[in-house]
Amino acid sequence: MTYEDDNIIELFLNPKSVAVIGASSNPMKGGHRIVNNLVSNNFNGKIYPINPNASGKIFGMNFIKSVKDIDEPVDLAIFYIPNRLIPKILNECIEIGVKGAIIEASGFEEIGEKGVQLKKEIIRITDNFQKIRIVGPNCMGLTRIDRDSNSDKKGGFFSSFLVFNKYLRGNIAIISQSGMLNGGYFTHLTTKYPGMGFRYSCSIGNKMDISELEFLEYFLKDDSVEVIAIYLESFKDPRKFMELCKRAKTIPNKTILLVKGGLTSQGKKASLSHTAALSENLKLTNTLIKQSGIIKANSFFELFEYARTFSMIYSHNKVLPVKGNISIIVGSGGAGTILADLCKLNNLTLPELSDNSYKILESIFPEWMPPNKFALVDIWPAMEKAIAYNQHPSEVVEKAYSVVLGQENIEGLFNMVFCSKQFRAMSNINLLINLVKQTNKPVFFYLIGEQREVKRTSKILGENNIPSFSNLESMVKNFLQLLTESRNTQ
Amino acid sequence: MTYEDDNIIELFLNPKSVAVIGASSNPMKGGHRIVNNLVSNNFNGKIYPINPNASGKIFGMNFIKSVKDIDEPVDLAIFYIPNRLIPKILNECIEIGVKGAIIEASGFEEIGEKGVQLKKEIIRITDNFQKIRIVGPNCMGLTRIDRDSNSDKKGGFFSSFLVFNKYLRGNIAIISQSGMLNGGYFTHLTTKYPGMGFRYSCSIGNKMDISELEFLEYFLKDDSVEVIAIYLESFKDPRKFMELCKRAKTIPNKTILLVKGGLTSQGKKASLSHTAALSENLKLTNTLIKQSGIIKANSFFELFEYARTFSMIYSHNKVLPVKGNISIIVGSGGAGTILADLCKLNNLTLPELSDNSYKILESIFPEWMPPNKFALVDIWPAMEKAIAYNQHPSEVVEKAYSVVLGQENIEGLFNMVFCSKQFRAMSNINLLINLVKQTNKPVFFYLIGEQREVKRTSKILGENNIPSFSNLESMVKNFLQLLTESRNTQ
Repeated sequence: MTYEDDNIIELFLNPKSVAVIGASSNPMKGGHRIVNNLVSNNFNGKIYPINPNASGKIFGMNFIKSVKDIDEPVDLAIFYIPNRLIPKILNECIEIGVKGAIIEASGFEEIGEKGVQLKKEIIRITDNFQKIRIVGPNCMGLTRIDRDSNSDKKGGFFSSFLVFNKYLRGNIAIISQSGMLNGGYFTHLTTKYPGMGFRYSCSIGNKMDISELEFLEYFLKDDSVEVIAIYLESFKDPRKFMELCKRAKTIPNKTILLVKGGLTSQGKKASLSHTAALSENLKLTNTLIKQSGIIKANSFFELFEYARTFSMIYSHNKVLPVKGNISIIVGSGGAGTILADLCKLNNLTLPELSDNSYKILESIFPEWMPPNKFALVDIWPAMEKAIAYNQHPSEVVEKAYSVVLGQENIEGLFNMVFCSKQFRAMSNINLLINLVKQTNKPVFFYLIGEQREVKRTSKILGENNIPSFSNLESMVKNFLQLLTESRNTQ
Repeated sequence: MTYEDDNIIELFLNPKSVAVIGASSNPMKGGHRIVNNLVSNNFNGKIYPINPNASGKIFGMNFIKSVKDIDEPVDLAIFYIPNRLIPKILNECIEIGVKGAIIEASGFEEIGEKGVQLKKEIIRITDNFQKIRIVGPNCMGLTRIDRDSNSDKKGGFFSSFLVFNKYLRGNIAIISQSGMLNGGYFTHLTTKYPGMGFRYSCSIGNKMDISELEFLEYFLKDDSVEVIAIYLESFKDPRKFMELCKRAKTIPNKTILLVKGGLTSQGKKASLSHTAALSENLKLTNTLIKQSGIIKANSFFELFEYARTFSMIYSHNKVLPVKGNISIIVGSGGAGTILADLCKLNNLTLPELSDNSYKILESIFPEWMPPNKFALVDIWPAMEKAIAYNQHPSEVVEKAYSVVLGQENIEGLFNMVFCSKQFRAMSNINLLINLVKQTNKPVFFYLIGEQREVKRTSKILGENNIPSFSNLESMVKNFLQLLTESRNTQ
């Protein structure tokens, strides 16, 4: 029996049974950690730990000498063994009818002639991947998250050789030609942005057989995926890639983000030694990105910041901006000035306030310090007035929000919050969250102040799917991506 | 008696006695917090809390009704009262011979005609600042740090209306037209970058009298200052400013960083309402920065990241790069590829390795995965080999460092470290710190991994004055500033 092409990714992301080739009782070895990752994250299929030299048990399961000793059907084999041993065992897998292999070992084209020979041998053995489908080699496995790590039935399918223990299920899927995105970076993301949730993370390695295309196509059809974050060093088939990206434009809430490595000759040399990718040049890639109507990121950092932003914006069903009309509320004139500069330099406009809006603002400002006539509110004088008159600062915040977000031609808000234990009352975060939930316009937060308070506030906002930033440029850049996406979709 | 012009900043940063006009026993009032800030940070001069309506004591000192009741000489008066009350009390200060005033109140030119009238009155009263010198109005005071907040005799002179309680003395001085830099941002910086030390932070507000020029001139002469971070919305005298910046080029380890707000018309409108600055346009400012040979930052975030970098580099007496030849050590091929791209796009070069360097590297790499022939070391395969042969990963790291940093034409290193409790041994941070201390070339760290471990590592590096970054672009951008500085100085 062979899986239909359409179902091949279903097999890889949702297998019923896996053999771990190279399972080991030594916790320093990747083969041990793969089994650990599967078991501790409640993989709900069968696991077969394969190692001819091991005896005894691993996580309560008996080691098995060879896949040939398994007498039940096996969906996937995960290889973590020296590359020279792969052909023999791959043959055995084909013999017993294993349908797919994830090869996490490296040492293929990226190492030159010897590796190329090995690849040729595998193509021959698999009859050009007709007998068994392959993800990798030189990858870090695939991850499917069904339930948050802090839930009773946490887990899904976790096949990286790095053990994951902290994660949330969310609407983001990763496709990556660098293993790190299903390795160290994944750990980094889930701990750096504790509110950020993922559905899949797929390390595709050298993509000897299965590539970004099959995964992308699968994610377009999967409603649980709204944001697809991709890192590539080469395109398997640029035309087909563009076609799939364009198809994404016809599906609501389906945003594709791409960072392309190996753009320059120096980077190309680096990626040749890495995944043997034939790197396209900068210009071609930029053209492709533009024609595909997808969002370009310049680094992993941007990729995941943008992913987080779209993920959050979609989860609140906010309306994406079209014109680029933004408003600003700050507690510092200096930050307001720099932010206004940044807006202008990036073609964002701070609209004039309507007479009615201005009147409301005027009423909360002291006579000696009237508000601006355009959508930049330096709220500090109003706060001082409220304190002087023993009013609650919340009223000031509520009025300022209602003014800028209530005005029809304003499409979003940049809100600076000074985080300080001393001033917690002033920046009443729960009030702000409520105000954000009441509007269908995106609200981005810029947080400064005491680091502990910044972290605390950022965490609360994150848990409520509200994006916050620690620098103004990032905040503006992220808002610009919403604009790009809405303009590409129109 | 009047202070010589040369000594005027000495008076403001190192006064022997201060009167706080508007001192209050209500902790919500700025006048209370100024006294608190002075007292809790061990100001070693006399403090006179002035308030005609208060009785009793504040921090053990009696309230005084008027400055006229003080019968000893007073160096400085700090004003935190409604602006309309200022002229009368300023007159009284002049009467008793107060030499300088820090006016933290707002409501001057930035509010229009009424404020302009007030300014005129003050010019008349002070005989165009001949009778008393003024910092402000609309500022957040001045800070001089003598000793770290965690030392026995912590403190110095702290006159902001925000109370500071966590800081280190260091080689950075701030001059800022936005109060926040001696307010919320200062708190932000000292808690975000716990290793970052400051010598002065000066909020100059509307600079009715004393401006950036006097402070800059003072810092050029002060050997304890190596990095001068400036935020301006307007130049008091562009020619004089350039002259001082050029003078800085003749002094070793004296770097000036500038962020200019109000560059664009939108920002200009914002800063008009803020400190009434007449903003110059983008082009003029850029020309001025270029001709001054100073470092341009685009935001507070960049300003302080660059300040931190120079501060650290100077504290280790590293040699600034001239050619832009850099090396890279990474644990992820993907990150290496993107970093190499970023280097190339910014005209940094990864030199070819010498035969000797290559031989050393080859010996630690597995046969199936030889190293690159240029200065980009993906260390992961070498680590795997070390583990397989039961060698300590430290040996691998040490050899890689010695190879790239030992090569004469390489001027620095970007080192990626994956921070994980699981892999602490591999990234042996103490070893890395020792290696960095042994070289006179700048080494920048890029940290990813589990957030807690990233923070821990970043803190240790910071305490050792080694810059670390959480994204590749920032790391590259900061290195480029070192190049700019060395090229401007030649």
